[in-house]
Amino acid sequence: MPNTQIVRHPERAAYDRSTVDAILDAAYIAHLGAIVDGAPVVLPYVCARIGDELVLHGSRLAGTLTVIAQGTPVCTTVTHVDGLVLARSAFHTSMNYRCAVVHERARLVDDPAEKARMLDAMFERILPGPATQVRAMTDGEREATCVIALPLDAASAKVRIGGAIEPAADGDPSVWAGVVPLALRAGTPQPDAVTGADAPPPQLR
Amino acid sequence: MPNTQIVRHPERAAYDRSTVDAILDAAYIAHLGAIVDGAPVVLPYVCARIGDELVLHGSRLAGTLTVIAQGTPVCTTVTHVDGLVLARSAFHTSMNYRCAVVHERARLVDDPAEKARMLDAMFERILPGPATQVRAMTDGEREATCVIALPLDAASAKVRIGGAIEPAADGDPSVWAGVVPLALRAGTPQPDAVTGADAPPPQLR
Repeated sequence: MPNTQIVRHPERAAYDRSTVDAILDAAYIAHLGAIVDGAPVVLPYVCARIGDELVLHGSRLAGTLTVIAQGTPVCTTVTHVDGLVLARSAFHTSMNYRCAVVHERARLVDDPAEKARMLDAMFERILPGPATQVRAMTDGEREATCVIALPLDAASAKVRIGGAIEPAADGDPSVWAGVVPLALRAGTPQPDAVTGADAPPPQLR
Repeated sequence: MPNTQIVRHPERAAYDRSTVDAILDAAYIAHLGAIVDGAPVVLPYVCARIGDELVLHGSRLAGTLTVIAQGTPVCTTVTHVDGLVLARSAFHTSMNYRCAVVHERARLVDDPAEKARMLDAMFERILPGPATQVRAMTDGEREATCVIALPLDAASAKVRIGGAIEPAADGDPSVWAGVVPLALRAGTPQPDAVTGADAPPPQLR
């Protein structure tokens, strides 16, 4: 089990599953780091927490995923940038964020029934609700897809919230300080040319 | 020089600096992967491109940054999620994104004048405009901060834009397909209790 203890700003650390799960569940992507040919490689993957695992997928042809699927140590990190924390000095200027780090070896999901279940659950994370409106996945499509699962046993979270922490001597009222919230927001859905006028638009999570 | 050739979906790859720079310049954070005690560690850092380098900073007390500053191989990745690409099948459902990957060893910036210049430039990336409104950084604050720079010699980009690519047989007009744009957006700035009514609010980039 790798060392997941957070040393820097331990007051921002959390190790409980509910904090970790909430961060993972709010994410569309995770950055996975692996050692490939002796050097680190960090790539983004669509992710979904399914029960006690973080599940990622990709093409069976993708080289890095093939290495990861062999069960080498990997580190998978999800970060949400929640705001700019503007202080009255550069030093105390910061960001609010939620970050979850999963230290684990990946498990290649090769049981066909489990793989089908996980792919359905991943799709459901992108577009909630029964996937009955879309064409079912074919066996060939499922075979072309590589699914890996990372147990959440060694996961940790780090969260910064609130305004700047600065010495009272910096407190000049003529200088604006505070928080500018940031969030990933959806714009207006843009249907493709085939979509009919009566097709119900997507209901995002 | 590590292998930065993109194998999977090479039509989405770009190696020109203008594409890489635009992706880095739009980012608040990068995910840096290093090998610590034999295992990969991926952590988020505030980042700013300054000329031909991607610059990161952190506390001098932070353990992972100390390892990175020693010049071991690292991989630093910036990803923007630009949209959900909803197809009429789970298999062709995708995401639009812009991703830049920088494969390089970090350079510890320890020249005091260069470090001061870089810290000013990093602050300017968070809050554009002259930093004259905030208190100048003290020598002690500068010494407490570790600055590293990653040359952009071995950087690559991967970009997906546009709608779903699906077979014509899937084109059922009763099913909505298209793109839901996603973007990190700023909310209403929230001043702290010290901020006076006349303090000019921040002008974000």
